[in-house]
Amino acid sequence: MKTNEAERRSFIKKAAVGGLLSLGLPSIVLSAFAEDKVKKFSLNKGDIILFQGDSITDAGRSRTDTAANNSKALGSGYPFLAAADLLNNFPEKDLKIYNKGVSGNKVYQLAERWNAEALDLKPNVLSILVGVNDYWHMKNGSYSGTIKTYRDDYKALLEKTKEKLPDVKLVIGEPYALLGTAVNKSWFPAFHEYRYVARDLADAFHATFIPYQTIYDKAVESAPASYWTPDGVHPSIAGARLMASAWSEIIKG
Amino acid sequence: MKTNEAERRSFIKKAAVGGLLSLGLPSIVLSAFAEDKVKKFSLNKGDIILFQGDSITDAGRSRTDTAANNSKALGSGYPFLAAADLLNNFPEKDLKIYNKGVSGNKVYQLAERWNAEALDLKPNVLSILVGVNDYWHMKNGSYSGTIKTYRDDYKALLEKTKEKLPDVKLVIGEPYALLGTAVNKSWFPAFHEYRYVARDLADAFHATFIPYQTIYDKAVESAPASYWTPDGVHPSIAGARLMASAWSEIIKG
Repeated sequence: MKTNEAERRSFIKKAAVGGLLSLGLPSIVLSAFAEDKVKKFSLNKGDIILFQGDSITDAGRSRTDTAANNSKALGSGYPFLAAADLLNNFPEKDLKIYNKGVSGNKVYQLAERWNAEALDLKPNVLSILVGVNDYWHMKNGSYSGTIKTYRDDYKALLEKTKEKLPDVKLVIGEPYALLGTAVNKSWFPAFHEYRYVARDLADAFHATFIPYQTIYDKAVESAPASYWTPDGVHPSIAGARLMASAWSEIIKG
Repeated sequence: MKTNEAERRSFIKKAAVGGLLSLGLPSIVLSAFAEDKVKKFSLNKGDIILFQGDSITDAGRSRTDTAANNSKALGSGYPFLAAADLLNNFPEKDLKIYNKGVSGNKVYQLAERWNAEALDLKPNVLSILVGVNDYWHMKNGSYSGTIKTYRDDYKALLEKTKEKLPDVKLVIGEPYALLGTAVNKSWFPAFHEYRYVARDLADAFHATFIPYQTIYDKAVESAPASYWTPDGVHPSIAGARLMASAWSEIIKG
């Protein structure tokens, strides 16, 4: 076991100077993070990392394979891609990574399964991305919750979490939407309120806030919105990679 | 559409100096590539990229979802992870990425399906990783092919490929094996001959050679072989990420 830290740093410097790092570098993410002063943290040996949320997090994960660090259990979205980064970058940390996102979930549905599928796993790091369905399902008439419901439910969920897991590191993702086959201009500005609530709660609970909307807004300078998320909500592979790079970037090296 | 190249370069430099790039940087890969002088190439707009091989490439891909850039069609191994990098890093190139790896395949089995599942797709970039089964199945008595069979079959496959697709960019992956639940010391040194054949053929056909064995040999300095490939052949998520980083690194930014 030798980490070759000096050798690694030397390569980083040479690679940066030589332009070798053009590939794989999340420049969009770095740019968004620089604007937002995103709070980073370190991982500890043995940390349990849990991804929670709706379909964006779910990403087709298996309900039968449930082991930590299992590709089927992690789905094919940003949690799997972030897990691959983390497991690759911290081989010495013995991380255990889970995804328990469920398609269609709003905050109250996270709350209904929170004991079994969040608290009981005793995560050291808990990442939550929820909100787009709280707006979308209200807008299409299938849900009566308002922005106040979203705020109250989310606040209660975080309070319960901190009560049961006082040392957990919280990561709160910004709900985002781009114009797409499922999202038209009538979503805005009302949808933005859900972003602001998530940001306010991240501040109030000292969570790391990942500004996914800012990141996607920068990404559409390079390719149309449909390239990153065809329907405006669910990411393409490229969009999922962008989100995973943001997630990986919140971890101190 | 603006690329913000100057801004991007500036971030790269700042990030390198500030140590921000510690995450996601394939230092193991860079170190292996520096030793091996790996030949890199650029992608063109509209390029079709095809991954071919055995179970390491297959990685549980769907046989029913077959569209380009589809996460199910790409499986959950290094082709999917590399595709995520490429689609994220080259949004302007309109890449079409396929995986047609089939679990258990030896070279002669690639040859049997080569027209339909390689040449007919008219790839601009064709990546092949094959060889471990040519050795493994011979060793366990289920296959009579020798190292000479491997060399002759592989050479014929590449000749046919260059005849039908004279401009294709070939990528040949080094077969690798680490001590694991499926690999013991009796594999060596005979197995090494398969690595050398793949390397010789890559030279002869002016292919880019990815030294996966070198990369894994460096990885075991950071964590036990079982962390990267539990059975010594099939990668963990961390191992797949390592291979994908190597693959992504052969593309000029």
